[in-house]
Amino acid sequence: MTTTTDVRVDGDMSRPSNKGKLLTDGLRLVHQRGFGASSVRDIAQAAGVPQGSFTNHFASKEAFGLEILERYREMTSAAVRATLRNDRLPPLRRLRAWIDGQLEYLRKEDMRRGCLYGNLSAEASEASDAIRFRVASVFAENQASVAYCLEAAIEAGELAPKTDVQELAGFIVSSLQGAILVAKSQRSPIPVERFTRVLFQHLLPQRDPASKRRGRRVAR
Amino acid sequence: MTTTTDVRVDGDMSRPSNKGKLLTDGLRLVHQRGFGASSVRDIAQAAGVPQGSFTNHFASKEAFGLEILERYREMTSAAVRATLRNDRLPPLRRLRAWIDGQLEYLRKEDMRRGCLYGNLSAEASEASDAIRFRVASVFAENQASVAYCLEAAIEAGELAPKTDVQELAGFIVSSLQGAILVAKSQRSPIPVERFTRVLFQHLLPQRDPASKRRGRRVAR
Repeated sequence: MTTTTDVRVDGDMSRPSNKGKLLTDGLRLVHQRGFGASSVRDIAQAAGVPQGSFTNHFASKEAFGLEILERYREMTSAAVRATLRNDRLPPLRRLRAWIDGQLEYLRKEDMRRGCLYGNLSAEASEASDAIRFRVASVFAENQASVAYCLEAAIEAGELAPKTDVQELAGFIVSSLQGAILVAKSQRSPIPVERFTRVLFQHLLPQRDPASKRRGRRVAR
Repeated sequence: MTTTTDVRVDGDMSRPSNKGKLLTDGLRLVHQRGFGASSVRDIAQAAGVPQGSFTNHFASKEAFGLEILERYREMTSAAVRATLRNDRLPPLRRLRAWIDGQLEYLRKEDMRRGCLYGNLSAEASEASDAIRFRVASVFAENQASVAYCLEAAIEAGELAPKTDVQELAGFIVSSLQGAILVAKSQRSPIPVERFTRVLFQHLLPQRDPASKRRGRRVAR
């Protein structure tokens, strides 16, 4: 009896709630396996909680999908604040750090996971307008953060003042998604590394004194 | 009796077989809804055939996935032959036609479908190594076809001879995938249109006599 009480108290104080477990382990499962292929039963099993616990905490699988999106977004927003919107670093270095951070995260699981936003865009766009809207809004947020960083790069003299910042930011966000997607099918970091090289060598040539003077294109 | 026979003969001659229906309607369903979210029952229902017919024709859902991938590839390969590998057209115009053709196809369904390769890469990479390998090999094929077209562009004097053709081709294939993916979440052609503009204005600047002489970058 005492033991049961102890365990319960211990559970309340230091172990995650069933909802917390469903979100943490469910996010991991959906990220790995896909939203459509992860049933409510799979998610409950992954979290080690009864299936009824899922229905207690989430009105629907869509509601659960929206909550794991928010969990994931907390992580990606922190990365954006530490890089793209971090005014203490030189602007183009921030952009590179943002991309490198994603590559590092993806490498941990051998590029298998891909980006949850891209994965949900590919597969859940038809199933749920709410999830689709949320994913589209995160893409728009990221575009705004990349644009913020590119604006700073212009101010710092790292980019030509004529650069169409919104255009380039949108291109960067979508092209990075594509590189992560192809990397996922190939289980290889090469597409993301190639994206970074082409971006920095050909689309964001760092202005050295010579290129500033002659406005020349770096051809490699 | 006679009627039954007539119907049967008619069926054999002009109507698709159950397998054909499963592939045609199943491809449409999976493209729209996703592979994980389309059950064998859903696919049989979409095709209007008994569920047993699916198991008669396909050893597994994975086997079905591989067959719809081949169906889709017939279509995309025909597009590649008509554009990227069509030596009768000027090279960079072929590249543009290849991208425009995909945009036109996607517009028909309001950008909802996305590219089946990208969709399967996002969601089926973990479920099936066979599907993942096939998708990765199509990306590699497409990269080879884009590289073929870029080589032709160099020979035709449309691109600088120093261009790293494989690097750029891989970048184009993955960036287009990303543009289609973001377009899917936004139900808008804008990401693909933007991809095309940035590509042709900044990565593949058409060499006019002035730029040829001075090797200058077109800044816009």
